[in-house]
Amino acid sequence: MNRDEFNTHISGQLNRNLEALFNQVLEMGGLVEQQLNDLNRALENNDYALAHSAMLLDKTINKEEIEIDRLCANVLARQQPTASDLRLIVMAIRVAIDLERMGDEAVKIAKLAMEQCSTNRDCTQMPAYGYLRQLMQASSEMIQKSLNGFSRLDISDVMSVYREEEQMDEVLKQAMAAIQQELLAADSADKVDLQVRMLMAVRAAERITDHALNIGESVVYLVKGKDIRDLDEEAMRQLLEDNAR
Amino acid sequence: MNRDEFNTHISGQLNRNLEALFNQVLEMGGLVEQQLNDLNRALENNDYALAHSAMLLDKTINKEEIEIDRLCANVLARQQPTASDLRLIVMAIRVAIDLERMGDEAVKIAKLAMEQCSTNRDCTQMPAYGYLRQLMQASSEMIQKSLNGFSRLDISDVMSVYREEEQMDEVLKQAMAAIQQELLAADSADKVDLQVRMLMAVRAAERITDHALNIGESVVYLVKGKDIRDLDEEAMRQLLEDNAR
Repeated sequence: MNRDEFNTHISGQLNRNLEALFNQVLEMGGLVEQQLNDLNRALENNDYALAHSAMLLDKTINKEEIEIDRLCANVLARQQPTASDLRLIVMAIRVAIDLERMGDEAVKIAKLAMEQCSTNRDCTQMPAYGYLRQLMQASSEMIQKSLNGFSRLDISDVMSVYREEEQMDEVLKQAMAAIQQELLAADSADKVDLQVRMLMAVRAAERITDHALNIGESVVYLVKGKDIRDLDEEAMRQLLEDNAR
Repeated sequence: MNRDEFNTHISGQLNRNLEALFNQVLEMGGLVEQQLNDLNRALENNDYALAHSAMLLDKTINKEEIEIDRLCANVLARQQPTASDLRLIVMAIRVAIDLERMGDEAVKIAKLAMEQCSTNRDCTQMPAYGYLRQLMQASSEMIQKSLNGFSRLDISDVMSVYREEEQMDEVLKQAMAAIQQELLAADSADKVDLQVRMLMAVRAAERITDHALNIGESVVYLVKGKDIRDLDEEAMRQLLEDNAR
């Protein structure tokens, strides 16, 4: 399937509406990318304003989801889309849900970053901080690859998104171990509180990578017409490797 | 809107397919209800076998989601559904995603329950245990109400789902405070580990209530054709109260 398929409709209106839907998903994805990038820079430079703007972006992202649902309902109600159009529509609904939840998780991390800047609590010295940064960097890369795959209708990067997600499961384990170590040594309610916040932040970051992977799966569904959620790992690898050849 | 609307189609096939979709969502919902009920009884009676069966149900639930997506794609591709049919289809996709994620969160709690039964760690004496039970009971009730609303196309219970969700936010706060207290007193890696597991379980339970609320919102969308996700609290109350009159 290539993007031109969306341009072969006799009905110019359907054509324009599908193009609008396609662009709307990319726009929403771009906002989440921006949110994650702002957050990464906020964590790197201890920048309150950037963390705050990442948090505020969530409202815009939520509105985009509703706009996408509206566009989908419009196309469905007024026209008679073909099978591949329908895959785009179903896929747009799914991706919008994942993007919206990525935004929600990002807000949790933004709050930690803002808290860090506005009090004299310095998270950067915490052992888990490095892991959080790693998870967030991976999130940015994964969403970028998934959205590139969507915009080019190309699944060749999805395999690397899978691998990255597996690596991040490992990073999460290390982060959890580091936090538990610190909790054991914590001798004040304030220290416990800070570690629990960090724990919530690394879990949120790991969920962001999950959602990025879901989006990769949706791209495979769109391009290949194949639902890979129920494939075992081996069958999925096969599919993606066959594609690479 | 009432359920008969789905029975007025000239095309008998569309009729049957929509009925099948409707029933499939209810069936998937029923499985999640069963999973939560098993889990509640497992937590109550420290029952390993029940916790294990709750965990195993997740695989069936995941397959149901894929089946629902397939049914939706079929209806969309072969027939020309009307506006209210389309709401059912979009809504079925959304509800299936929420149900599937409820199942994932339930697995996390099942693992805690199994861990508790198979080791000599007794969670029932932990202060947060009572809160976890409360959250899980509420989850069961909320999903039951949301699914009843779906099966009768009636939003009158959705308001109480909202109220319950607000109460559960409070319960979560209390649970988190209790866990932090215990973490401060924890003097072994094992005790820290147990508290962290409990923390993950209460977060998972709280996310289950979030998903149950999302399903309530989808029921409102289906019945009223109105997207209430972007309404502020007051506007939403108004809508639901107007309905109650």
